[in-house]
Amino acid sequence: MSSGPATHGKGYGISDTKNYQDFTIKEFKLKTPEPSDVTLSIECCGVCGSDVHTITGGWGPLSDDWICPGHEIVGKVTHVGDAVTEFKVGQRVGVGAQVFACLKCDRCKNDNENYCPEQVDTYNSPYPDGVMAQGGYSTVIRANERFVFAIPDAIKSEDAAPMLCAGLTVFSPLVRNGTGPGKTVGIVGVGGLGHFAVQFAKALGAKVIVFSHSANKKDDSFKLGANEFVLTSDKEFEKPYFDKLDFILSAADAAKIPLKELLSMLKIGGKLVSVGLPDEPWSDMSPSLMNPNASCISSTHIGSKKEVNAMLKLAAEKGVKPILHDIIPMSKAAEAIESVKTNKVRYRYVLKQDLE
Amino acid sequence: MSSGPATHGKGYGISDTKNYQDFTIKEFKLKTPEPSDVTLSIECCGVCGSDVHTITGGWGPLSDDWICPGHEIVGKVTHVGDAVTEFKVGQRVGVGAQVFACLKCDRCKNDNENYCPEQVDTYNSPYPDGVMAQGGYSTVIRANERFVFAIPDAIKSEDAAPMLCAGLTVFSPLVRNGTGPGKTVGIVGVGGLGHFAVQFAKALGAKVIVFSHSANKKDDSFKLGANEFVLTSDKEFEKPYFDKLDFILSAADAAKIPLKELLSMLKIGGKLVSVGLPDEPWSDMSPSLMNPNASCISSTHIGSKKEVNAMLKLAAEKGVKPILHDIIPMSKAAEAIESVKTNKVRYRYVLKQDLE
Repeated sequence: MSSGPATHGKGYGISDTKNYQDFTIKEFKLKTPEPSDVTLSIECCGVCGSDVHTITGGWGPLSDDWICPGHEIVGKVTHVGDAVTEFKVGQRVGVGAQVFACLKCDRCKNDNENYCPEQVDTYNSPYPDGVMAQGGYSTVIRANERFVFAIPDAIKSEDAAPMLCAGLTVFSPLVRNGTGPGKTVGIVGVGGLGHFAVQFAKALGAKVIVFSHSANKKDDSFKLGANEFVLTSDKEFEKPYFDKLDFILSAADAAKIPLKELLSMLKIGGKLVSVGLPDEPWSDMSPSLMNPNASCISSTHIGSKKEVNAMLKLAAEKGVKPILHDIIPMSKAAEAIESVKTNKVRYRYVLKQDLE
Repeated sequence: MSSGPATHGKGYGISDTKNYQDFTIKEFKLKTPEPSDVTLSIECCGVCGSDVHTITGGWGPLSDDWICPGHEIVGKVTHVGDAVTEFKVGQRVGVGAQVFACLKCDRCKNDNENYCPEQVDTYNSPYPDGVMAQGGYSTVIRANERFVFAIPDAIKSEDAAPMLCAGLTVFSPLVRNGTGPGKTVGIVGVGGLGHFAVQFAKALGAKVIVFSHSANKKDDSFKLGANEFVLTSDKEFEKPYFDKLDFILSAADAAKIPLKELLSMLKIGGKLVSVGLPDEPWSDMSPSLMNPNASCISSTHIGSKKEVNAMLKLAAEKGVKPILHDIIPMSKAAEAIESVKTNKVRYRYVLKQDLE
């Protein structure tokens, strides 16, 4: 008979959005174990822009007195419930930005569990049993096996971790909007998400045009696989691309992006998906921006397990991986957070386990 | 040998957006006749919200010293160019909100002439030859035959006129977004455009749910064919419709519509098209409104000739027609304009010819 799963974890968290750099170590309770749950000890965790939005209060107040962020998690399975079929103790796995869904609704049954209305985020979100989900700047996490992903041997843990939110967040809308051979895709913003978007759009076979307001992203864009690089601070940058783009993915985390110009480059009915979710609303949004070409604006939320698996397979085959700014101990989380907040990160921090 | 086409028209127009009710009668020059042009003498013209936005300056300054509005035009052909194949002198025809496109680009060649970058609006827009296009509160109009439409005998002129902008503007996005049997479509706002949208969505076979902030639109909505009527001022009006709508067409001409609530009712990836084009931007627009269900926001511009013909055929078959507030002489244009501006119109004015 196997030993019971862990009941508690320990992690780095914050208590006050005004002092978002003051991480303290605390022990926290894990969700009640259920037959389909997998428990893993955490090896490393990526630092995501979402972590910054959440702990600075940009997306609203904290849901609890103390929040442990982190949702780009790789570790080793330490326990599986009796109903778990996919995973074994000792296996290397990952967890992304979602740890629960009802798994019964139409959305869950149709590979849209990432849009389940009962979803629980990996942190700052309460489970139905009342236990607060805590994230990956910690020792251990438990989740239903639907939200646990096998990591291919070809991908190192520190490269896999950032894919589980940043990678998936761009991979899902790229795939759902037909990115592939014969298509021209615009990627706006080359940061943590965007630098994956360029690689995945390329790996999927599309022609990739990067739009950035930073000339210093040019070399990296080409290294990542861009076919063209366009500086959005150039006057009339959009003109040569009128009616040329099938799809635009904006990873720009900004309240003001050149929406009118970007939309004008889309073919009739083409879509711009913003996976950037700025703290402030878009001030200049108007239906009249879209009616010259019936273009659409959308936003998406991470992706499904089916998409995670497809993404990891493609990444393993094509060598897609993050450019890591640094790999540092979890105790230095505040350093990474500040680098993301001030937009200095190129392009992802990964925190290595240093607790226990 | 036929006589030459008219060289000038006479109409009711305005010179100053601040005094948008001060219509004066002036003679104006018609575009240079070309072999594919059709000239018609105007019998009647609908009064559209666009006329109000334009002559009040809501959509920007006037393009000329004097503007004759009106783009829901029915009349009789008085002259056809040598290359015209579709029409004969004496035939009853209509002209909508567009009078020119290049007819050579990919958009024009693929039934998207309404998105041609060289398009000329029916009024307040210059032709390539420099002549200012003037609208239908006038005696005569000339347009390329692509922008002239045969009116089925079953439809009266005063019923056909408002379809050529208001009807088409809603028919095109309904059709392009798959409105038909088995689909549930939300129509937001029951005015000049919305009252056509309800009828066309029904005629196309969809289940139609009307969302309005005016309880006094309830009876009309059911008369027009709505299956359900929902008051958007009711708290949590959207809750019973979560994940139920395939498509939403918003005809609300307002800077603030309950976007978050409306979008929440869409199925995964569902679209809201706003054909309302308010003067002011939407102040509360944010990607986070769409990421709970990957919904999209779009806007469209009138429709193609192919769609006009399909719309008129369907209208003739199913008896779709406007509810006319009144039919008044063109000299009373200001009265109709004020009624539209103050949202008193139920649901369309048509102006009858009284010049010459």
